[in-house]
Amino acid sequence: MHIDAIVLHLFELGALRFGDFLLKSGLRSPIYVDLRATISNPRLLVAVAESLHGAARNISYDLVCGVPYTALPFATAISIAHNIPMILKRREKKAHGTGKMVEGIFQKGQRCLIVEDVVTSGQSVLETAQQLAEEGLIVEDAVVLVDREQGGRKILAEKTLQLHSVCTLSSMIHTLLEKKKIDEKTAADAIAFTQSHQLR
Amino acid sequence: MHIDAIVLHLFELGALRFGDFLLKSGLRSPIYVDLRATISNPRLLVAVAESLHGAARNISYDLVCGVPYTALPFATAISIAHNIPMILKRREKKAHGTGKMVEGIFQKGQRCLIVEDVVTSGQSVLETAQQLAEEGLIVEDAVVLVDREQGGRKILAEKTLQLHSVCTLSSMIHTLLEKKKIDEKTAADAIAFTQSHQLR
Repeated sequence: MHIDAIVLHLFELGALRFGDFLLKSGLRSPIYVDLRATISNPRLLVAVAESLHGAARNISYDLVCGVPYTALPFATAISIAHNIPMILKRREKKAHGTGKMVEGIFQKGQRCLIVEDVVTSGQSVLETAQQLAEEGLIVEDAVVLVDREQGGRKILAEKTLQLHSVCTLSSMIHTLLEKKKIDEKTAADAIAFTQSHQLR
Repeated sequence: MHIDAIVLHLFELGALRFGDFLLKSGLRSPIYVDLRATISNPRLLVAVAESLHGAARNISYDLVCGVPYTALPFATAISIAHNIPMILKRREKKAHGTGKMVEGIFQKGQRCLIVEDVVTSGQSVLETAQQLAEEGLIVEDAVVLVDREQGGRKILAEKTLQLHSVCTLSSMIHTLLEKKKIDEKTAADAIAFTQSHQLR
């Protein structure tokens, strides 16, 4: 599936919405990217996973790790399609059992690619990277479906984490405008918001 | 992959261990079932997903929902292989965004199959079922890779939830004994534990 087709599909699913939204960072935004709808659309999920795998084609890695929750199915789909072992980072340590923070089988020194749905500040990616690094894994790259272009890429780069993205928020907006799914004003408002809300 | 091959693979991966373990329920057990290793083995993950799908072959359902975390990749693999929409239950409500407890696209009245890795008391399955029911979904069936046979099946049945399992703990132990992976005493101790620790 071509990236434009993925973008249109996301829009039709309501995964890209225009209005007034409160973001994780506390900001209000005229555009909301909510990729969780992809999990209920297996064909789109596979297409998204393929596009992520493609965006990471020049990186060498031994493992994939999705950032909970939305990117977990993305990482699983990449793992299955390309026979790449997956590891899973918990949100919080279990009080019982083996008490691991990172689940799955891995060895220190293996290279792990982080998989994420949307990057704004990069905070979720960073937390995941730090936990993986504490386990002795090498984490230098993250692949994301949507880079909101609000500074996350730079913030991650400062921590020696390279962000690879399938789409940027502006490229998606341009696609929707070109395909006449949104009007000029909606597109301009969304792009202006992104440009005026740089986190770094 | 035949069920016996899955059991042997799980044993080799350390997903079935014999020793002295503290379970979620607070009990100590001579056998520990830790299926999280499956997530790092894509071929096994697909085989497990197929066996779960097979165990649910007589059930009609519109959606699958994995219990976090280990069963999430199982549900994803079923969803992808059989083009069945997945929904995702969060562990806790988000403070921001759309604030949904259940992510993904669904309609009230749809039938959802719960996917789980191991059932002991059935508590995790029950919590998931209750949250899905609150969203208006019909939840009458759960499919699990390993039923520990400690009462979970009965506890779930009392809540009108039918448990379908690929393996029982005793069937796995018998397979390992038959394949000479464990000795008679280890097998007997593990089976005796299961039989003497019924939760209902």
